[in-house]
Amino acid sequence: MADDQKASMTGAQAIVSTLADNGVTACFANPGTSEMHLVTALDNEPRIRSVLCLFEGVATGAADGFARASGIPAMTLLHLGPGYLNAGANIHNAKRARSPMINVIGDHAVHHRGYDAPLTSDIKGLAGPNSNWLKSADTPQETGALASEAFMASLSDDPGPVSLLLPADAAWTEGAEKGPVVSPPSRPKVPDAEIAKTAKALESADAPVLLINGSGVGEAGLQAAARLEGAGIKVFSDTFLHRQRRGAGLFAPQRLQYFAEGAIEELQAFDLLVTAGTLSPVAFFAYPNTPSDLVPDGVKTLSLGGRETDSADTLARLAQALGTNAAAGAPEYVMPDMPTGDLSGFTIGQSLTRHMPENALVSEDGSINGTMSYMTTGAARPHDWMMLTGGSIGQGLPLALGAAIAAPDRKVIALTGDGAGMYTPQALWSMAREQVDVTCVVFINNSYGILNIELARTGAGNPGPTAKNMLSMGDPAIDWVQLSQSMGVPAVSVETTEAFDKALEETLAIKGPRLIAAHVTS
Amino acid sequence: MADDQKASMTGAQAIVSTLADNGVTACFANPGTSEMHLVTALDNEPRIRSVLCLFEGVATGAADGFARASGIPAMTLLHLGPGYLNAGANIHNAKRARSPMINVIGDHAVHHRGYDAPLTSDIKGLAGPNSNWLKSADTPQETGALASEAFMASLSDDPGPVSLLLPADAAWTEGAEKGPVVSPPSRPKVPDAEIAKTAKALESADAPVLLINGSGVGEAGLQAAARLEGAGIKVFSDTFLHRQRRGAGLFAPQRLQYFAEGAIEELQAFDLLVTAGTLSPVAFFAYPNTPSDLVPDGVKTLSLGGRETDSADTLARLAQALGTNAAAGAPEYVMPDMPTGDLSGFTIGQSLTRHMPENALVSEDGSINGTMSYMTTGAARPHDWMMLTGGSIGQGLPLALGAAIAAPDRKVIALTGDGAGMYTPQALWSMAREQVDVTCVVFINNSYGILNIELARTGAGNPGPTAKNMLSMGDPAIDWVQLSQSMGVPAVSVETTEAFDKALEETLAIKGPRLIAAHVTS
Repeated sequence: MADDQKASMTGAQAIVSTLADNGVTACFANPGTSEMHLVTALDNEPRIRSVLCLFEGVATGAADGFARASGIPAMTLLHLGPGYLNAGANIHNAKRARSPMINVIGDHAVHHRGYDAPLTSDIKGLAGPNSNWLKSADTPQETGALASEAFMASLSDDPGPVSLLLPADAAWTEGAEKGPVVSPPSRPKVPDAEIAKTAKALESADAPVLLINGSGVGEAGLQAAARLEGAGIKVFSDTFLHRQRRGAGLFAPQRLQYFAEGAIEELQAFDLLVTAGTLSPVAFFAYPNTPSDLVPDGVKTLSLGGRETDSADTLARLAQALGTNAAAGAPEYVMPDMPTGDLSGFTIGQSLTRHMPENALVSEDGSINGTMSYMTTGAARPHDWMMLTGGSIGQGLPLALGAAIAAPDRKVIALTGDGAGMYTPQALWSMAREQVDVTCVVFINNSYGILNIELARTGAGNPGPTAKNMLSMGDPAIDWVQLSQSMGVPAVSVETTEAFDKALEETLAIKGPRLIAAHVTS
Repeated sequence: MADDQKASMTGAQAIVSTLADNGVTACFANPGTSEMHLVTALDNEPRIRSVLCLFEGVATGAADGFARASGIPAMTLLHLGPGYLNAGANIHNAKRARSPMINVIGDHAVHHRGYDAPLTSDIKGLAGPNSNWLKSADTPQETGALASEAFMASLSDDPGPVSLLLPADAAWTEGAEKGPVVSPPSRPKVPDAEIAKTAKALESADAPVLLINGSGVGEAGLQAAARLEGAGIKVFSDTFLHRQRRGAGLFAPQRLQYFAEGAIEELQAFDLLVTAGTLSPVAFFAYPNTPSDLVPDGVKTLSLGGRETDSADTLARLAQALGTNAAAGAPEYVMPDMPTGDLSGFTIGQSLTRHMPENALVSEDGSINGTMSYMTTGAARPHDWMMLTGGSIGQGLPLALGAAIAAPDRKVIALTGDGAGMYTPQALWSMAREQVDVTCVVFINNSYGILNIELARTGAGNPGPTAKNMLSMGDPAIDWVQLSQSMGVPAVSVETTEAFDKALEETLAIKGPRLIAAHVTS
């Protein structure tokens, strides 16, 4: 770069072009006054697609979806501390999904910070707990180098959301220069000795079980897992997976139950639990009289690499060490009959099995009906299923938006509950604006369904009118067709299994955002 | 209380009944599994009205509105770290408004925290920066006493949001007992010597100016301020006020300009600036070549008590010390003619002046059109105007919800921009469910109007297509009538000044939630 070019670059320009140099191609943004120079810098950077989000939680949920679909971090553009807070729940989810994400948080000019203006807050304090890396580019000279560092940190051994604070004066002042193109490390591999030792333990166990996650639930990992199950090792996956390859032709590990007592019972049949690409399983919530550690007494555990490791590689080498080649079977694709009976997550899964195209990306938000749909799509055409790994509902629609921006040639399907969908309905507007190819299915039961179950399970007593009211969304019932159309996404409402099947077939045939309001019975 | 009663009380019950004993009458809630015992405790507490909110930012915005309308803190019920994050932007706003608020944040059981389950996060770290008080009730024995302490802290000299963490096991375990009824302190008064000294300085100044906020912009404060202006001291108020009494018969201090360069120019005419119930004025944002300190060189400043003081009392005593009784004038109510011309915040303010009933509570969200409406409602029937004091847009609708719960006999009017309104539209659903008496006016200009101005003011360069796109909400245009009706709030759309005037008159005559989608030209 010529010296005069260097001199004319602002901090905002240096950040944007450094991220573009490193391969960032999308920015999900909700800007404010302190980010105006970032907005105009993005204006001049054709390599980055800027997507306006009307709420910051949409921006970060979309960045998570973008990363899950592409492996590449997106940047977000957030407005000071409150912008970070609005974005925060889906940053929590992204951290739990280990999704790389570069949150660029605009801040007051350095000289303005001490004046305690209305939008001043302790951004570092707020963003610290859920940021895998956090720095502030307080001078234009630091901006480019810190953008490279932020990119690198988001893709480290502990990938996830990072925070780069950019004070307005560092953004608007010239004298910045671009940071280097960096090479994030590949995932660490488990040492040979560990593989050999574990293989021996598995051979001498009476009833061994393997629990997998990470790249272990991608295509190569599942091929190896199938060989291990063929060798008599029962293979489970974690309950919640950032992205699982599944469907016809693909080995399906058993998914560990969500409810703690059920998971413990499932694991009681075994004497050795080996984990690969994950940790020893724990309960999602605590309950009176139920242990948090899901491993039953008497089951020995061995770790074959945590979340940071390349578990697909681990499983392949383990299968090789065990010398097995007889893989467990996988379902074949057979078009199921039109489902019948009450409309539910189960029958919706059957319709998805009938109509979902090959290579679809499913974003599912952890609702009861979403879990039911998972159960009846195991033999659908091969697809990827992305789940809520952080437990904060309201991610399903934004995740689908971001995945569709990352993978414009794939059909994206969002499955969300009506409770979850109401956290970030503004995602629909960005879907309409960007005309992404997303079919949204909202399971409408006018209730926080899971909480009605949890109320009993936690032993909180018999619900009276107030308690029932706090778990019900039926008064008034939300009209999701109107809600969706108000933001520019065409929508239909269905109340029967047959009507859903027809609506899904028709909707999937259209390229562009659509919503089906599915009035389910459970 | 009998010993057997004590023994049978859970931590959740102790918190809820302690807060009720202290006068808390409302809980704005978005519960999850870890809060089930709080939900059933609320079920058994008839003194607290529980309001379900579909998004946590609605709950905290409503609690802020409740406190501004009543002076009493509401409790909120939030689900772990992500629930706090979703609630966080309106907690920031409440902190800046000095609104008391008791955020009860459910946490994992103490024994479950160390297992790093998916919803685990550093709640204390996340909530710390914006909590005026933060403690965790880790045992049932602590719950009642900490609830009293939290109530007290929310109403301290530095009133605002406090955070009480409640692990699920402390919530569900018996052995708790209620905490005491406490008496929060009254606001400190400024010492007599300070009043006398300032009176002298004002008497010897050539062109003195007073900047007021806090109780100084309530009815008694304004009466004293009128006497001071009558004595030749120009009276300004801060730009953003948590709650201002205004309208016919009430002295109106001049509102300090939002734009820094304008405020500096306004203050240049004076030689002495006295502040009461506020701090020396600073710019909202930093701009290149504009100072952050709005006090021009050569203007001497004197503080007559910060935000914590009872500024109405300060002003009354200052007026007495100056020996003045000739109050500045106040507008009289004269019903204006039907406004004409383009529909804008100005003409909407004129219609409000025609139709707004006495004692209305206005929640206004800081949009350009909201400011215009403020300017043309100075002679409306007496009312209270509540502003966005923290700068995080998206508070207007939730604040109105909470104010209406606190003051069921008063008409509440929410004035919000379409950009701001899209942050927390879920407030409309709670308005419909609770059938609160709120008229919502959404200024629709399909744009982040202020950002189009700020883009030029920050010198960020000429906007190209991407920059323009990032500040525009017109593609697609949001249909606010559909959006509102989807959540159960009847709505109409108007495009002319005459149609708005008629719609407003008709809407205000109805008790219950309504929305007017006002397509403004600016």
